[in-house]
Amino acid sequence: MSSEAEKIAINARKSSNILKTLSNEERSNALRLIHKALVDKKDEIIAANKLDLEEATSGNYSASLVKRLDLTKGDKYDTMLQGILDVAALPDPVGKVTLATRLDDGLELFRVTAPVGVLLVIFEARPEVIANIASLALKSGNAAILKGGKESTHSFKAMASAVSSALKETGVVPEHGIQLITTRQEVGNLLSQDKYIDLVIPRGSNELVRNIKSNTKIPVLGHADGICSIYISPEAEPKMAARIALDAKTNYPAGCNAVETLLIDNKVLESIPSLSTFPVTVQTLLDAGVTLKVTPEISLALDKSVKAGLLNVPSNAKIEAATEQDFYTEFLDTVLAVKAVNSVEDAIDHINEHGSGHTDVIITENEQAANKFLKGVDSAGVYWNASSRFADGFRYGFGTEVGISTNKIHARGPVGLEGLVGYQYHLKGHGQVASDYLGAGGSKEFKHENIAL
Amino acid sequence: MSSEAEKIAINARKSSNILKTLSNEERSNALRLIHKALVDKKDEIIAANKLDLEEATSGNYSASLVKRLDLTKGDKYDTMLQGILDVAALPDPVGKVTLATRLDDGLELFRVTAPVGVLLVIFEARPEVIANIASLALKSGNAAILKGGKESTHSFKAMASAVSSALKETGVVPEHGIQLITTRQEVGNLLSQDKYIDLVIPRGSNELVRNIKSNTKIPVLGHADGICSIYISPEAEPKMAARIALDAKTNYPAGCNAVETLLIDNKVLESIPSLSTFPVTVQTLLDAGVTLKVTPEISLALDKSVKAGLLNVPSNAKIEAATEQDFYTEFLDTVLAVKAVNSVEDAIDHINEHGSGHTDVIITENEQAANKFLKGVDSAGVYWNASSRFADGFRYGFGTEVGISTNKIHARGPVGLEGLVGYQYHLKGHGQVASDYLGAGGSKEFKHENIAL
Repeated sequence: MSSEAEKIAINARKSSNILKTLSNEERSNALRLIHKALVDKKDEIIAANKLDLEEATSGNYSASLVKRLDLTKGDKYDTMLQGILDVAALPDPVGKVTLATRLDDGLELFRVTAPVGVLLVIFEARPEVIANIASLALKSGNAAILKGGKESTHSFKAMASAVSSALKETGVVPEHGIQLITTRQEVGNLLSQDKYIDLVIPRGSNELVRNIKSNTKIPVLGHADGICSIYISPEAEPKMAARIALDAKTNYPAGCNAVETLLIDNKVLESIPSLSTFPVTVQTLLDAGVTLKVTPEISLALDKSVKAGLLNVPSNAKIEAATEQDFYTEFLDTVLAVKAVNSVEDAIDHINEHGSGHTDVIITENEQAANKFLKGVDSAGVYWNASSRFADGFRYGFGTEVGISTNKIHARGPVGLEGLVGYQYHLKGHGQVASDYLGAGGSKEFKHENIAL
Repeated sequence: MSSEAEKIAINARKSSNILKTLSNEERSNALRLIHKALVDKKDEIIAANKLDLEEATSGNYSASLVKRLDLTKGDKYDTMLQGILDVAALPDPVGKVTLATRLDDGLELFRVTAPVGVLLVIFEARPEVIANIASLALKSGNAAILKGGKESTHSFKAMASAVSSALKETGVVPEHGIQLITTRQEVGNLLSQDKYIDLVIPRGSNELVRNIKSNTKIPVLGHADGICSIYISPEAEPKMAARIALDAKTNYPAGCNAVETLLIDNKVLESIPSLSTFPVTVQTLLDAGVTLKVTPEISLALDKSVKAGLLNVPSNAKIEAATEQDFYTEFLDTVLAVKAVNSVEDAIDHINEHGSGHTDVIITENEQAANKFLKGVDSAGVYWNASSRFADGFRYGFGTEVGISTNKIHARGPVGLEGLVGYQYHLKGHGQVASDYLGAGGSKEFKHENIAL
């Protein structure tokens, strides 16, 4: 007898087998029907969301959790609705030919993008994420099992009912194409269904991701910490350095693409007071209320800047001594660890050792140094003269994102539709057999010619 | 204090940080130096290989293991040498731009292929695989930790010494770029080094792969069973059906791309004796000594064919009743499970349920049925009128292969150089910050224009 988790997984697999055969129009139409259902049932969903909010408030949850839960906050609901239509309008990610080779006359090999299959997506208590993920999954021909944070259960159930009725209305998308589950127990059991589930996407803490990786044979598209760095080279333009550091640290400090470490080249420090990069950058950060955790060289440079009349430390400024651990920390707050490095190579080494492979930035007018940095830093995003805050699926033009991956394989960085497809090889022949060819007993040679697409 | 495994992993990571910055010429040159070292040290390596062979013979190992061990078998050594030069001559897999988007004027996003990083490759007692994997890893800018089967330890050490001296001679490839380890204990400890190792590639049994997946948080590029099927549609050309089934079953029955299941459309069975597809195919298989495990409908069709004088069952033919389990079995022998299906849809359902997602074949002259099959079967390779035996990196034109993946993400099917690279996003700006744009506090809109490459 199969367990509840196995039933869910088998139903998802069966749905995935049908979903992968649907046309882009059929899949996109399902999204438009989900959009319509979420418009029609808005009142019910908002009422359910109110229940979640009441429980959260009486349960003394954090203000940020309540804010994430609240579907009526600002234009959240409308943005969610628009997101569904945006994904529906994106080009079909399935069936794209990415390699075509003539193995021999009349024997043609095509590598064609195909849905991954069955996704298990675990996410935080943000009800609108259901709509994002369901849209991305269906558009890319995948079945998905969704598990949201327990604090959003009422909203989750109301939205699940809307999605479910929309799927029925399509007439072609199987009812189990999107399944929403509510208990934590089921997640544990689903993690053992590696026969049916192809990819787990946990959105949440580093701990959640590591815990899931330890408990499943299913590949995990994980999102680890964002320990992002900015390296200020000797050839940085001072105002640009200040502007980018300010944006990367203060625009949204709780974001994983916020900067946590500032690496300043020793030549920048030596050039005080002839070059203003250091004092200008530090002044900007201190004026914005950023706490600086500094190494002894930076401390000396601060003194030197003050003495030269280039830096005016605000009375309420917080400047503390940095520990080695600070350079491995995602502060998620207006706190920045600052350190001196000897060269671009030194900056690269620091980032490859201390960073989390998310997004790292060089600020420089020196193209050679920039190229060295772009080639040497082993992170999902490597930026030249731009804020790390651009690391985001919407900003990259992917419509929306399923998460930001710090994996090194499959999908890296912001993951949109392309991260939800893999590929298959289609070989079209006329009765060819391997034993006619060299290496398998025959004498025919392969041609291996590119086929123009 | 760090363990031995941690030291190996850290050394690999450091080497990977250097390897990823080398040019294609530097990486390809390393391959040519490895080739030279394996030519120069051939006598020593063959002498070491003799020791392994002696131990294997006295240890009563299987004949097939001894055959796999033997580097002097046929042209194995020369083929290995040529493979290294072939990989060196392949186009650079690193640094290819696969997406380019203008986010805004002067803010350009590029998705660029990059090495995965550090690979841990575990493989069988086939010494020549060291050269294959080392070539593929270095060509794609990855560091690799290699562990071969224990029966090949002497050959392995001799080859490791040759590879190591070649790396020294390059002057640029770090000495720990390729590390060869010999004890099983170390593999277990290495599997916990997910901080430094990016991908585990186990080549071997299904059990080995599952065991590794259960014991690591590192992504695993696994190679599971090859339970490949051929579906013979009512519109199959009879001789082609027979030829492909024969090749797929008998060309190399121990290969994972050999066929294990033959699905015959009921309409083919009903058309006996007017259409000869069934008797011709079965006659060919029986004449070649293939054992057939058949369901009752197939048994009836055999009788019908014999009575119609279309089939002459050889006196030594082995025809047995099939069990349900036979359709989940990789026989790795001249044994074939045969079953009737009602339609192409039924064949697709059977394959998606029973197969291992390796390679499946439809034989038909009906393009519509073929397209349905190509779209519906959820396997790494889906073939139309060609033998499943073409599922191979060399035959696909990849030079050589690191394995055949039955994963659904990252790399699927035969994995060549492309499976050993991921990508990074490079963003090149002129000081842009997110807070100037819509969604992050500003009013500027993104352009998201494709950049022509």
